[in-house]
Amino acid sequence: MNARARPIGVFDSGVGGLTVAREMIRQLPGERLIYLGDTARAPYGNKSPETLIRFALETGAFLAAKGVKMVVVACNSSSAYSLPALRARLSVPVVGVIEAGARAAVAGRRGRPIGVIGTRATVRSQAYARAIHGLDPEAAVAAQACPLFVPLIEEGWIRSATTLEVARAYLAPLKRRRVESVVLGCTHYPLLKGVISAVLGPDIALVDSAREVAREVRTVLEADGLRAPSGRVDFSRHRFYVTDPPEQFRGLARRFLGRQPRIATVRLPELPPSA
Amino acid sequence: MNARARPIGVFDSGVGGLTVAREMIRQLPGERLIYLGDTARAPYGNKSPETLIRFALETGAFLAAKGVKMVVVACNSSSAYSLPALRARLSVPVVGVIEAGARAAVAGRRGRPIGVIGTRATVRSQAYARAIHGLDPEAAVAAQACPLFVPLIEEGWIRSATTLEVARAYLAPLKRRRVESVVLGCTHYPLLKGVISAVLGPDIALVDSAREVAREVRTVLEADGLRAPSGRVDFSRHRFYVTDPPEQFRGLARRFLGRQPRIATVRLPELPPSA
Repeated sequence: MNARARPIGVFDSGVGGLTVAREMIRQLPGERLIYLGDTARAPYGNKSPETLIRFALETGAFLAAKGVKMVVVACNSSSAYSLPALRARLSVPVVGVIEAGARAAVAGRRGRPIGVIGTRATVRSQAYARAIHGLDPEAAVAAQACPLFVPLIEEGWIRSATTLEVARAYLAPLKRRRVESVVLGCTHYPLLKGVISAVLGPDIALVDSAREVAREVRTVLEADGLRAPSGRVDFSRHRFYVTDPPEQFRGLARRFLGRQPRIATVRLPELPPSA
Repeated sequence: MNARARPIGVFDSGVGGLTVAREMIRQLPGERLIYLGDTARAPYGNKSPETLIRFALETGAFLAAKGVKMVVVACNSSSAYSLPALRARLSVPVVGVIEAGARAAVAGRRGRPIGVIGTRATVRSQAYARAIHGLDPEAAVAAQACPLFVPLIEEGWIRSATTLEVARAYLAPLKRRRVESVVLGCTHYPLLKGVISAVLGPDIALVDSAREVAREVRTVLEADGLRAPSGRVDFSRHRFYVTDPPEQFRGLARRFLGRQPRIATVRLPELPPSA
């Protein structure tokens, strides 16, 4: 098949990456997506680097077998650890969410520290600090893990008083550091924008990496001559796969994607323990 | 090896089953445990029956290869779905946590409905209602899923005002039903006993299935002539395995088990997709 006509692979532990898929569909209407949510093993946010790398390689093998022309790691926890291993294994470009978010945060920089919120795995990796310092060695970074945000979002408690309380507790250290912006370093968090803004106040900008990633995907596709001719928008050509039968995923997908996709269940190829 | 001297296999998605292991160590000091926490794929509470059965069979194969004389499914979500498949596959007795909890709830029955709290998977299975009705067809059962309890416990928010708020929201329907008792249908929940009692008040009894399971294990071992001669308590002979490197597990294990075990990381045998 013509390389430009091949689909783009996108993966996440579950539904969070749909915020990235949604933005890609909006910004790149000619492209066809193959999305995989590894829901049988979700969430990824508290897991170790070794395990996240193994899961990413298994998912990469699945997407490669589908003939994708690019892989987008639409999960911050996975992006924080698995990009080098994925790039070594795959013959197509691999785009993560962290570089894109870091670039947007640095682009808007006014001189105060940049805040980053994410899962425990993402924060522990210090991947955002490294990416931000690579772009601007002067920038101070204040990172905060918010492990309860994902379960609260998946439980649908998006506007509850409890979620507001939890957000107040997590975000207090960033307010004390007088951050100028906060990078939403988890693809679930755009759904909590309302609560997070309410706690942080109007002077702290939120950086939503989904939009930035879609922009970066476009740049890489164009640089590599892989961009599909822009066609009419046809949602039905995108494919959505999960590793756990999709009862729970289906309920959340509409909220994250803005519409209800058709979903198929798959088993990922298992890599040998040496991988 | 003499059958009685063989270890007992215990498994859970992660740390929760340690509340059962702890009680088994207390009640059965002569026994040796092999514990597996499937932390790479935890939590189990929102996952589908098909996936839970596959995970249980993989864990069962791992424990069988270790020569265990019995398998204890120390996870309510897994017990709710995987006991028949495990019993068909393994040649040793298999004990789940739900029967034991149901028996304790019915034993103390005074005539009002019995409350059950658990993960989404456990509640959706209606396994407690079936077990309770099997013992007492007159008993009314009111079940309530509490999906945020596990992440709150794992985040260590055991006594926080937020957790109290969440508990109030989840437990209100059970109070309205005027339940006489509440079965803690998730092995994590004994750590939240304080908050749950505070919300339910002194008239509603809590049923902690960990204790009941240990009692049932003893009964089955004795009936099958498999009980180890009671020896001196030696914690170091128990073995603890996890599927994700144990940084997070280690931090929580002391709280659940009452002491710090040595932990090894393993890969589970993968079963073919037909399994």
